[in-house]
Amino acid sequence: AIVDDLLANVRQDLAGRQVVVTAGGTREPIDPVRFIANRSSGRMGFAIAAEAARRGAVVTLVAGPSALPTPSGVKRVDVETAAEMHAAVESIESMDLFVGAAAVADYRVAAPAGQKLKKSGETLSLELVPNPDIIRGVVSRADRPFVIGFAAETDHLREYAAAKRVAKGMDLICANEVGAGKGFDRPDNALLLLWEGGERELAQADKRHLAGEIFDTYHQITQD
Amino acid sequence: AIVDDLLANVRQDLAGRQVVVTAGGTREPIDPVRFIANRSSGRMGFAIAAEAARRGAVVTLVAGPSALPTPSGVKRVDVETAAEMHAAVESIESMDLFVGAAAVADYRVAAPAGQKLKKSGETLSLELVPNPDIIRGVVSRADRPFVIGFAAETDHLREYAAAKRVAKGMDLICANEVGAGKGFDRPDNALLLLWEGGERELAQADKRHLAGEIFDTYHQITQD
Repeated sequence: AIVDDLLANVRQDLAGRQVVVTAGGTREPIDPVRFIANRSSGRMGFAIAAEAARRGAVVTLVAGPSALPTPSGVKRVDVETAAEMHAAVESIESMDLFVGAAAVADYRVAAPAGQKLKKSGETLSLELVPNPDIIRGVVSRADRPFVIGFAAETDHLREYAAAKRVAKGMDLICANEVGAGKGFDRPDNALLLLWEGGERELAQADKRHLAGEIFDTYHQITQD
Repeated sequence: AIVDDLLANVRQDLAGRQVVVTAGGTREPIDPVRFIANRSSGRMGFAIAAEAARRGAVVTLVAGPSALPTPSGVKRVDVETAAEMHAAVESIESMDLFVGAAAVADYRVAAPAGQKLKKSGETLSLELVPNPDIIRGVVSRADRPFVIGFAAETDHLREYAAAKRVAKGMDLICANEVGAGKGFDRPDNALLLLWEGGERELAQADKRHLAGEIFDTYHQITQD
């Protein structure tokens, strides 16, 4: 594949860069058989990891449960929960570029049961507590990388995404609408990219193509 | 495949029987992107549907979200939630044999949000209410079919399964241990079959093989 890419004249414009990508959804256990999950397929994050490797980066892909194959030349770390994903990202010593494409569960069950819960016929209340914020950890590093994040919204796409970018301290946010056959668990998507002083709309396209556009935008912003 | 089976001298011992099989897990929405799920892969139920068809039955497979291919000769109805699975089974007019192999969510979220919930940083409480009991509906039919159910337990396998069989009015229950690399999301399994006045232990085996043993046990119990 490397030979193909060289022959195809692919820009090695991420050559030697340490790129860390999170992908997929996380699973938060309720008991040994039940969990809270989300509709993320991991396709966007896997496409970004593949594209980064194709452009010459040293890529670590931290992935939630996914049946997708590991992209060629990518180091993959499999995790299940948001806490495990957080720990895996924290343990990576140095990174030039961080892409948080995972749909990380905001909440986990406060006290998962060690044994399968029995049905009682009664109403049940599940206590949820906030998960550690992976992006916040990355942004507060002394040697802070360029940070690309995602926002999946059912409504108020631009406003929510712009607010999220600023609140989280991301350099670039990729926003997409979800619900009603959009976004999750599909091979294509449309994205709205927002950064300090700029934006770019990417029409419905294959996620691999969108990954290329995201890195092109990164180069445009950093002007390198 | 039918010709192969005839050549292989497969017993058509379910010829013309109406067999309904539920398979997979259900997903209970929290909001448009998050849901409660479980570790069921659907493999056991799909194997049972395939085996029933191979033995000549008219098979309807009511399946929760699963990437598994539809077995040859089987009518498949895809559902997502326990309520949808309940409605799909209720709508089937006549059945001779019902196999409830799905891991149906006992609870659903009382009030799923129409839009994606925003993280507030606060502890959250999720109100859960009991789902309709699919087996109970089947057992209370005027033309009650033979009912085979499953129990996936992390502990007290025999006691819990025996109690579940009686409480639910199943004719035969197939119990299996889950957790620690057992049961869910695996191609093989071990089962303990319990019925009125009898039991049978099936050693770790391919789920297709287990499906055959379950139907052989059914014939043994009904002596036809």
